[in-house]
Amino acid sequence: MEKIAIQDLYPEDLSYCYGCGRLNEHGHRIKSYWEGDKTVARFTPESYHIAIPGYVYGGLIASLIDCHGTGTAALAVQRYGEDKNASREAARFVTASLKVDFIKPTPLGPELQLQGEILEMKGRKVISEIKVIAEGKVTAIGKVVAVQIQKGLTDTNN
Amino acid sequence: MEKIAIQDLYPEDLSYCYGCGRLNEHGHRIKSYWEGDKTVARFTPESYHIAIPGYVYGGLIASLIDCHGTGTAALAVQRYGEDKNASREAARFVTASLKVDFIKPTPLGPELQLQGEILEMKGRKVISEIKVIAEGKVTAIGKVVAVQIQKGLTDTNN
Repeated sequence: MEKIAIQDLYPEDLSYCYGCGRLNEHGHRIKSYWEGDKTVARFTPESYHIAIPGYVYGGLIASLIDCHGTGTAALAVQRYGEDKNASREAARFVTASLKVDFIKPTPLGPELQLQGEILEMKGRKVISEIKVIAEGKVTAIGKVVAVQIQKGLTDTNN
Repeated sequence: MEKIAIQDLYPEDLSYCYGCGRLNEHGHRIKSYWEGDKTVARFTPESYHIAIPGYVYGGLIASLIDCHGTGTAALAVQRYGEDKNASREAARFVTASLKVDFIKPTPLGPELQLQGEILEMKGRKVISEIKVIAEGKVTAIGKVVAVQIQKGLTDTNN
């Protein structure tokens, strides 16, 4: 049986995100899953996702952290949320803030693994830590504050 | 006379960055300039740079902040650096850390303005604040810690 990513359960009208929307044919279409108590996504950058020769563009790394962070938040609601059985559609989050520490240059070529942990769930907010791992080494660590979208409300500043 | 962006002065081998390299034909190729005491870049997202309907993808916003942050650092060295007359090539920075607060959703359609201010210059490090402005309103605020590349040394963790 093929695994179902959380992004496969996003409502259709909220599935066009450049980073993780399954319906955005120009985008990265990342897929986030639970693996044990971590959330995981994998992505292999293209050769043009370059920063300086040999290394991955930091903006791409920030983008992947961002989208895996909102995916991780949705996965957290799926597993731990109060209404986790109420709907087959996933909760949809936007990013309120994003912090990325680039620990060391990320080599361009190998597949990157994004590994997420839930730091906090409170009300509509989920805070996660997302590690970027290349060839077994952590190259960047992100912290994502994600806020669940309420219908008709897209302001994240609350 | 056409204005010269700081990215036009990056060394050729360091001009392939997906965000700001003038030689990356797949990338954003942003251009950063001084305008008074602010650094400025402009970028109009494509229709597929979408997050949720009507709004710009946060990963793109983070990417633009990242690259205008390293551009702002290079502009700072150009204007204030000790060896500002020593070379016509611009200093080249990589990002050590990036923080983005998404203040409100950024409308998808209008041109975005990135406006940078230097917060600190110390040794090889330049810290800047980058605002993203759409239709006259600040929609995101970033803080970029950029570290100047030394030849043969690409580790940012120092």
